[in-house]
Amino acid sequence: MEVKKHTIKLVVNNRPDVLARIAGIFSGRGFNIESISANITLDPNVTKIRIVTMGDSSTVSKIQNQLKKLVDVQSVSHIRESKHGRREMIMMQVNLTDENRRDVMKAIDEFQCKIVTKKVDHCIIEATGNEDDIEQLIKRFEPMGIEDFSRSGVVAL
Amino acid sequence: MEVKKHTIKLVVNNRPDVLARIAGIFSGRGFNIESISANITLDPNVTKIRIVTMGDSSTVSKIQNQLKKLVDVQSVSHIRESKHGRREMIMMQVNLTDENRRDVMKAIDEFQCKIVTKKVDHCIIEATGNEDDIEQLIKRFEPMGIEDFSRSGVVAL
Repeated sequence: MEVKKHTIKLVVNNRPDVLARIAGIFSGRGFNIESISANITLDPNVTKIRIVTMGDSSTVSKIQNQLKKLVDVQSVSHIRESKHGRREMIMMQVNLTDENRRDVMKAIDEFQCKIVTKKVDHCIIEATGNEDDIEQLIKRFEPMGIEDFSRSGVVAL
Repeated sequence: MEVKKHTIKLVVNNRPDVLARIAGIFSGRGFNIESISANITLDPNVTKIRIVTMGDSSTVSKIQNQLKKLVDVQSVSHIRESKHGRREMIMMQVNLTDENRRDVMKAIDEFQCKIVTKKVDHCIIEATGNEDDIEQLIKRFEPMGIEDFSRSGVVAL
């Protein structure tokens, strides 16, 4: 079976143990969570969770079925691959030197990054895009000296 | 003790069960995770996790100490409140009607949102900012008809 990336979206009741139980279903099958993002919705009792995992379709369906059986899980759906609908944010700290300054600023323009803070020796930038865009951005900045970065995980509607 | 928002940042080994064990520590103390975001880093064996929770400082320190004892947890730190460094992304589907179209476009400009897709009857937009900015944005768009939205959770360096 072909192993590929799957995004699963859950709507759950906002209870302390629900995330632990969800994560337990993935780890119980030896499935790693590649990225997760969760946040409250307009209704403070309801949380939306998006999980990206790698696996074959048959195992992913089994996991979906197990998730559906959990108390406090209202719905489980599999997000179709649509690059438009799957966005991510990255924050990145890039070192600034006399040598790389011009090139860093050029790359910031190219990728339409936002500068969050700028100091003499480094800057913190942010950018959004689909997963490919974010990978390309990391590749572009890597040779210039990425000090640190943080990705949000996939956000999708 | 004053109950307030705390952001905890963890650096962990990228193993299937680590998230379940982390979430278990929060739920074991009846602490709700307000938002979580996790993603792989430049080193594919290492994952960074950011968790926002509500609580008093003393309980949050106890949780931090328990997290530090977990196998596969490399480091645990408490992110200081700095609005610049704490960013979030939101994606939002807004209904478009003849009545609200002009106002929606005005709000998109005001909040410097990016239009991800635009149809005759709705559009999907994205925006980034600190938590306050995102709350303000939701308040601004709510009367115009938010069909759905997804927040990434806090991303911080």
